Amino acid sequence: MKQYLKLDDWSVIEEDFNPEHHEISESVFSIGNGHMGQRANFEETYSGSSLQGSYMAGVYYPDKTRVGWWKNGYPEYFAKVLNSTNWIGLKVVIDNEELDLNIAKVSDFVRELNMKEGYLKRSFTAELSGGKKIKVATCRFVSMKVREAGALRYAITPLNFDGELTLTSYLDGDVKNTDANYDEKFWDPVDETVSNESATVIIKTKKLNFHMASTMINEYFQNGQKLTPEVKVAKREKYTSQEVVLPLKQNEETSVVKVAANVTNRDHDTSSLGEVAQRVCRSAMEKGFDRLLSEQKEAWAKKWETSDIVIEGDVSAQQGIRFNIFQLNQTYTGEDDRLNIGPKGFTGEKYGGSTYWDTEAYCLPFYLSTSDQNIARNLLVYRYKHLEKARENARKLGFTKGALYPMVTMNGEECHNEWEITFEEIHRNGAIAYAIYNYVNYTADRDYLGEYGVEVLAEISRFWEERVHFVNPKAVYMMHGVTGPNEYENNVNNNWYTNRIAAWTLEYTLEALAHVNETDPKRYEALINKLDLTEEETSKWSDIIDKMYYPVDEESGIFLQQDGYMDKEQIHVSELDEKHLPLNQNWSWDRILRSCFIKQADVLQGLYFLNSEFDIETKKRNFDFYEPRTVHESSLSPCVHSILACELGYREKAYEMYLRTARLDLDNYNNDTEDGCHTTSMAGTWMSVVHGFGGLKVQSDRLVLNPFIPGQWNAFSFKVLYRKARLNVQVTKEQVVVRNETDEKVDLTIGEEQFTLEGKEEIRTAMKK
Amino acid sequence: MKQYLKLDDWSVIEEDFNPEHHEISESVFSIGNGHMGQRANFEETYSGSSLQGSYMAGVYYPDKTRVGWWKNGYPEYFAKVLNSTNWIGLKVVIDNEELDLNIAKVSDFVRELNMKEGYLKRSFTAELSGGKKIKVATCRFVSMKVREAGALRYAITPLNFDGELTLTSYLDGDVKNTDANYDEKFWDPVDETVSNESATVIIKTKKLNFHMASTMINEYFQNGQKLTPEVKVAKREKYTSQEVVLPLKQNEETSVVKVAANVTNRDHDTSSLGEVAQRVCRSAMEKGFDRLLSEQKEAWAKKWETSDIVIEGDVSAQQGIRFNIFQLNQTYTGEDDRLNIGPKGFTGEKYGGSTYWDTEAYCLPFYLSTSDQNIARNLLVYRYKHLEKARENARKLGFTKGALYPMVTMNGEECHNEWEITFEEIHRNGAIAYAIYNYVNYTADRDYLGEYGVEVLAEISRFWEERVHFVNPKAVYMMHGVTGPNEYENNVNNNWYTNRIAAWTLEYTLEALAHVNETDPKRYEALINKLDLTEEETSKWSDIIDKMYYPVDEESGIFLQQDGYMDKEQIHVSELDEKHLPLNQNWSWDRILRSCFIKQADVLQGLYFLNSEFDIETKKRNFDFYEPRTVHESSLSPCVHSILACELGYREKAYEMYLRTARLDLDNYNNDTEDGCHTTSMAGTWMSVVHGFGGLKVQSDRLVLNPFIPGQWNAFSFKVLYRKARLNVQVTKEQVVVRNETDEKVDLTIGEEQFTLEGKEEIRTAMKK
Repeated sequence: MKQYLKLDDWSVIEEDFNPEHHEISESVFSIGNGHMGQRANFEETYSGSSLQGSYMAGVYYPDKTRVGWWKNGYPEYFAKVLNSTNWIGLKVVIDNEELDLNIAKVSDFVRELNMKEGYLKRSFTAELSGGKKIKVATCRFVSMKVREAGALRYAITPLNFDGELTLTSYLDGDVKNTDANYDEKFWDPVDETVSNESATVIIKTKKLNFHMASTMINEYFQNGQKLTPEVKVAKREKYTSQEVVLPLKQNEETSVVKVAANVTNRDHDTSSLGEVAQRVCRSAMEKGFDRLLSEQKEAWAKKWETSDIVIEGDVSAQQGIRFNIFQLNQTYTGEDDRLNIGPKGFTGEKYGGSTYWDTEAYCLPFYLSTSDQNIARNLLVYRYKHLEKARENARKLGFTKGALYPMVTMNGEECHNEWEITFEEIHRNGAIAYAIYNYVNYTADRDYLGEYGVEVLAEISRFWEERVHFVNPKAVYMMHGVTGPNEYENNVNNNWYTNRIAAWTLEYTLEALAHVNETDPKRYEALINKLDLTEEETSKWSDIIDKMYYPVDEESGIFLQQDGYMDKEQIHVSELDEKHLPLNQNWSWDRILRSCFIKQADVLQGLYFLNSEFDIETKKRNFDFYEPRTVHESSLSPCVHSILACELGYREKAYEMYLRTARLDLDNYNNDTEDGCHTTSMAGTWMSVVHGFGGLKVQSDRLVLNPFIPGQWNAFSFKVLYRKARLNVQVTKEQVVVRNETDEKVDLTIGEEQFTLEGKEEIRTAMKK
Repeated sequence: MKQYLKLDDWSVIEEDFNPEHHEISESVFSIGNGHMGQRANFEETYSGSSLQGSYMAGVYYPDKTRVGWWKNGYPEYFAKVLNSTNWIGLKVVIDNEELDLNIAKVSDFVRELNMKEGYLKRSFTAELSGGKKIKVATCRFVSMKVREAGALRYAITPLNFDGELTLTSYLDGDVKNTDANYDEKFWDPVDETVSNESATVIIKTKKLNFHMASTMINEYFQNGQKLTPEVKVAKREKYTSQEVVLPLKQNEETSVVKVAANVTNRDHDTSSLGEVAQRVCRSAMEKGFDRLLSEQKEAWAKKWETSDIVIEGDVSAQQGIRFNIFQLNQTYTGEDDRLNIGPKGFTGEKYGGSTYWDTEAYCLPFYLSTSDQNIARNLLVYRYKHLEKARENARKLGFTKGALYPMVTMNGEECHNEWEITFEEIHRNGAIAYAIYNYVNYTADRDYLGEYGVEVLAEISRFWEERVHFVNPKAVYMMHGVTGPNEYENNVNNNWYTNRIAAWTLEYTLEALAHVNETDPKRYEALINKLDLTEEETSKWSDIIDKMYYPVDEESGIFLQQDGYMDKEQIHVSELDEKHLPLNQNWSWDRILRSCFIKQADVLQGLYFLNSEFDIETKKRNFDFYEPRTVHESSLSPCVHSILACELGYREKAYEMYLRTARLDLDNYNNDTEDGCHTTSMAGTWMSVVHGFGGLKVQSDRLVLNPFIPGQWNAFSFKVLYRKARLNVQVTKEQVVVRNETDEKVDLTIGEEQFTLEGKEEIRTAMKK
């Protein structure tokens, strides 16, 4: 844990340059626009520790699997997020001395991520070896308006001398992934062109034939006047540069504006890629830096209009929640239904892949409530498009029918290789089914079921059907050899959550089929034929629903995480000496496995998902049992506990759990932010506020709120899109105010009270104490 | 499965050269002498597929671990058996054409491993491109008398031409391991010297500083006359060579005798290594090839005198059992107590490491019965010397006391990295305790307990004490999160075998302590002090013995392999379609894990080890239940089933199981012999005959035999050393003949009859029908 960032409502601010924090800051100050993004690497050369990273959404590399001991069924490769052309690079030489913050004496350093307007700023004074001092101010962003363009402004003012600046602006595609399994480079050169006006680098991946073209245009200014210096061009494989020499005058500012376009053959013809990059870049440069920046501000204002959360009286919490919302909006914008939400977004290369069950279990609610309904829908369609691959995956593991979605994927194929997860953490299939329910329940877009939903549901149901087995002597269905959401148990029998989500999938599939049959019999007929779905199958599903085995402790009535859980040594986390925590850094794997300690919500995940199935007593009983045994060593854990604690009235616990997620990366809670931010878990933080403190859910086509305000806050407010309405919910210690910002009528329940909120109407109701 | 070898009582013979079989033959025809060994690579250049391998016992490389996902507690390296200097190399050029069996037309090819006398022969006719034909005859061995020396004779006779032979004899230390994790070379050069008389190469490992020096001396002959041709010498890094040009005359034999010494700084000063190699080589060459070979024959005759098994009426079984005995004797001779028995001996590099629980569970009985008692004792002392490392290993996994022996090791440190095995397959600790019992029971060397045994036993007992946990509500001790001998179950709770062997260890440790206390109170006192053993500990052990939990199926009384085993889908192997077998090549890991199928004896391993604890009915009940569920996909499995089947009178099953082990490598049963032979499981085959068909055991200081003869055999006989006596046991369909070849009296039970066999006496008793 490192707390070195300044608190601020709208910005993340680092003052004083500390090389030890640099890689953490590179993650935290990352910028992205859904199409591309990058870590907050310095533009100029930096010889200290740094993780270089520029990423293009959807461009990946199938890196040959590395394992110690091969197991049948392992995938041949692990899809890696791909570090790609560095387009921000500037070599800054002043009177033959290169600027490098690892060498120069740095003062007045300020780095700022302006989340409100969506840009990254930096300013500092550097003293060079001869005592020459310069002031540098930079600003850069990737455009939310022109997704393929990024821009930066880099200004230098000599403070105590006149001199000469040699500035080399470059594009460098000769880059590596630090997590390459066999230390290979993933990019091959295609073409480099450079002229006085612009420079282009085209590269392609060694496998899968992804092509990427980057073009840069540089403009130079002195005291606001555009310069036209002589340009010296250079190129080599995967690299082009333009060098200019500019006179520097004491206290006068010299600057470069660099605009770059990054385009790929995911969106354009491979053959015209260079031209497209040129065109995009030129058109962006024609707008100029200032207009690009003002467009950026407008775009971000729009994002905040539907997704902001305001917390009064707690700037740390305020900054934390906005940082999370900002990162989510940078990572996934929903326009491109081939994309998904990588666990680190554009902030690092770790974990590779782009899609985990995080998307369905944690991210979907955020996008459902803060974006156009199509964006959440696209997340579902993404899985629909991968259905064939999920079928293949099930076949590969020996199933004769059905679909098993992968644990980690880029294109629908599995690319994770730990048997206990890849083959056994199959509850992910349930989360994909649940997301369909969640979407339909929230949006009332029931047509989705007939159009796409039922196919996915039926294929997942078939998987469950084959994955359970009937135990004759006990006349129940069981599911052996699974890993539940709590990855601190592997290869267990009858994980309660997995058994329940499996049976629930069967229930919901039958319900969805019935709905389609009722509302669109023709479509129903077509689906039955397409799926070749038999009555034998659906009645088998009913039988499994009826006879599914759920491990329960008979004495206490607690749902058992899995068979035999009560035979473990029962200890509370609070009884552990602190030196053991986090367990995953201090204990060997076997010790973790045989302990009762829980990495993340497991039974409780089920109580959260299938909330309305269980009465308060049941939830309380299980929460009281499992919470003290949970170490929350997954960033996805505390939010679920926080939300349940809110429902159970455990206010202190709810706030404690909230704090564990809200500033996870800002405070580098897990000592790993240098690898990148925990992007998908940020949606969990949003859920903690909206579903937890706000108590928001949708039940029987009514929006339900059950707000409670942590004692540490004066007020908080959030916005949600619900069906066609946009609501602003404000919660103070005294009252709840819900304002309908649109003309759509909304049926609303607050606590026990029922309302119908007309267009533009505002209602107030007193807080329950 | 490939059967291409000729049946023969005493030799393994390959006729006709088939490049597809070459790598399998390279394994099968391997030679070794305990100090060094090598695959049956050709002396001359061979451009076809070949796995080059020359190995020095005890010389290994700590290769950096390669895993997909690191887990706490994994070792940093995996110790690899090290491919080292190729000393057999000859480049054979005839009139400018190099001999290469991958190119030449080969006829009359015969390769023979003479197991009786311990050498490898090869002869063939090769037709070169111009139609020139030569006959080649080779013979080579690594000396059982002069352990650091090897010798070969390579003779060429031109059949239809006169010509010129350019022969380059070389030492090549610039070799690789094919299983290197990161494709690195493990050897660095130290020195190369070459003269007309001899050549030397000294190399050292990049880590651990193992040095190896090899010297060769070559002598040339024509029609029995020694030649003194001009020698052209050459050297480069890690390589030296001597080249001669010799005239060839039609039908006249030209030959080279190459003698090489391979010495390491495990046995000599690093600084004098080159000199030692020179001296050993020169002294061997002074004896000459023929005398070295006759010494070899004598040494092997001695080995067979104490270890041969004769099977009459079944040449396939005869060849199989002799091959197994031969390989065991080649691999480990017991003089060097720093060595152990690698799973592939000197026949391949796979599995790295040298010591698995195979040594204690399978190999010890072979050496106990066929070698001087000290040799088996050395195998125990080896573990005693690793006790400190085993303590460190336990600490690394979080245990505050006790010792956990590694799954795989070279120097006592763990070097395996699969969590489910490395951390959980802890029953290996029990096998190490059991081996002490087994040794003491067989030899009556009870002093071993006070000298070494108790320390190891007590530290293993402490490990068990901490590894179990008390389950309050049930008032029993349980052991969670283990992998039993059946590796087709991972991370299970209460594996019956592990629980039993743990409690048994505690029982035997208390017994051993009592024995030392009774017989040598001073030593007892010293041990208690050295171990700091408290009464609290020993009474805790008693408590665990009393309250250990053993899973049992209440209805049938079957010992359950682990908790929940009966909840699995219960299928017999015979019900599986053949296409699924072997499971490990056809099923994904999760499918294997959740099935009821058993890789190797697990509960049955316990019934074999602790045989006298259980009545016949119990053994029968469990055998009848588990045998049909066992797929025997470990080479260590069928022997245990065969032995139990003998005891239970399941004659057909016993013979079926025996067949699965006896010719495993000769018939390439598992399609993997090209990687090397299954050396440690060969001891299991020996056990099948002696413990199974012979029914040999030692009970209450009596040697017990319960012979039965498979219907397919006319007779079989085996020799055993028992305490100071050597017995020859012959079993025919009619009678059992036991001949005491020594002067020592032996108390003997055959079936129900008790005998006292005086020195040189022979007794006969009729076979039970």
